[in-house]
Amino acid sequence: MSLYGAIEAGGTKFVCAVGTGPEDLRAQARFPTTTPKETLGRCIDFFRAQPRIDALGIGCFGPIELRHGARRYGHVTTTPKIGWGNADVVGPLHQALGVPVGFDTDVNGAVLGEARWGAAQGLDTAIYITIGTGIGGGALIGGQLAHGLVHPEMGHLLVPREADDLDFAGDCPFHGARCWEGMASGPALARRWGQRGETLPADHPAWDLEARYIASGLTSLVLVLSPDRLILGGGVMQVDALLPLVRKHLTRSLAGYVQADALLKGMNDYVVPPLLGTQSGIVGALALAERAALVQ
Amino acid sequence: MSLYGAIEAGGTKFVCAVGTGPEDLRAQARFPTTTPKETLGRCIDFFRAQPRIDALGIGCFGPIELRHGARRYGHVTTTPKIGWGNADVVGPLHQALGVPVGFDTDVNGAVLGEARWGAAQGLDTAIYITIGTGIGGGALIGGQLAHGLVHPEMGHLLVPREADDLDFAGDCPFHGARCWEGMASGPALARRWGQRGETLPADHPAWDLEARYIASGLTSLVLVLSPDRLILGGGVMQVDALLPLVRKHLTRSLAGYVQADALLKGMNDYVVPPLLGTQSGIVGALALAERAALVQ
Repeated sequence: MSLYGAIEAGGTKFVCAVGTGPEDLRAQARFPTTTPKETLGRCIDFFRAQPRIDALGIGCFGPIELRHGARRYGHVTTTPKIGWGNADVVGPLHQALGVPVGFDTDVNGAVLGEARWGAAQGLDTAIYITIGTGIGGGALIGGQLAHGLVHPEMGHLLVPREADDLDFAGDCPFHGARCWEGMASGPALARRWGQRGETLPADHPAWDLEARYIASGLTSLVLVLSPDRLILGGGVMQVDALLPLVRKHLTRSLAGYVQADALLKGMNDYVVPPLLGTQSGIVGALALAERAALVQ
Repeated sequence: MSLYGAIEAGGTKFVCAVGTGPEDLRAQARFPTTTPKETLGRCIDFFRAQPRIDALGIGCFGPIELRHGARRYGHVTTTPKIGWGNADVVGPLHQALGVPVGFDTDVNGAVLGEARWGAAQGLDTAIYITIGTGIGGGALIGGQLAHGLVHPEMGHLLVPREADDLDFAGDCPFHGARCWEGMASGPALARRWGQRGETLPADHPAWDLEARYIASGLTSLVLVLSPDRLILGGGVMQVDALLPLVRKHLTRSLAGYVQADALLKGMNDYVVPPLLGTQSGIVGALALAERAALVQ
């Protein structure tokens, strides 16, 4: 059985692990994201202390260069995070460890992990959305991870303003009150109501409004990509009351336009939480490693 | 050289042709869409009178069933068009002509045709949008046509209302003033200004507003799919002044968030008209035939 290495490369922390699947994740390590040299050095030290891995997967914060053959393939590109602009992530790891490296966005890793071992098993087209400090999304489309010119940044798709929310200025420095993240991220929620989401009671009107904005973004995703399932993770989605409200408002927002049983029958099996839960990042990286080994 | 058959199957008219490519389209016929039996019968009669084709391609109005193995694969599904609800399109043609049949939405056909012979040659990920009586979109994603649960219906993605357009009720029977088609289709334009688009002068404020709504929909498409190019066709786009305005407002709307040269350098090569022009439907069907022959 092949042993894989996994790196969940976030803007604030890195997590490393080796394993064969979600039930067999060994020797995890986590450390803060400092400079690329120091942080990637700690990753290399970690893997050198483990049994030899067959491939490495990295689910990385972005934006990143994913076009094979591009001069900066495997780099973080234009991040404002100090030291990481145009930082090579794949190169140093590949050179030090000498194994195939699967590299993608953290959210593409997450949707691949859910497709391999979680809530999207057997599906052809699925979307993983995380709603927390920001909104991010990964997509498996026809069995392939979505790339294109850069990679999806679906958290910034545009949403209509709700009629009872006319004054909020939005929280996106790029798109103000026009984009999904600007209206529905955790910080947007906190800014709109003057307190953090987790301090708002379950019956607070904040949650119905939040669910409507989440449903608006999902509406566009359903219409653009026609996914077989939507998987919603992230800190904001930890509020139990939210998922049923999102399903209700997504049904209302689609308004019966798309005639598919999955969309017309209550959505309990269509809009779901991640099965891998808080492990989705590191398990997604493991799935990227497995895929990298298979395409060799 | 293989000879292919093509059917542009629209809700008001069908166009049939045989040929080897866009420069060699022979013996076109067109007739009104009446009942499925009569209309498909005329298609069969047409192809039987031609030299034998190697495969047939059909770019069809929708919604249609595209999942291979589904009971109603190759059918139009829930259309309000009388007689066509659950009508089998592929079955009678395949049975009568005995050749492989490529079947997809008209807009997926169009994007494939543009990828094969037009404005998307050599690209991995491209979107074709038609803005006319309605708004429709087809997508080539990683070299594959986008399907999923049903197929994309990207004309109905949601868009924010523009600040100087607060009263318009929208023209979509499903989504009112919330969706792209409801705000920016040809009929929406006519309803908003009380006259048909082609009667509005080029310096009328209608065009700037129209361009802003078109750009809003494109913004979400860029963020969700990260296409290498956007191809804009359809009747509304025939107004010369519109395309430069769309490019300008798309640049403004993205607000520099996605750092890619194609998006930051004026967009003249990123947002383009179809190279196949009014032939995009029938040439798209021809591309579907070619693909069907190749995957045999």
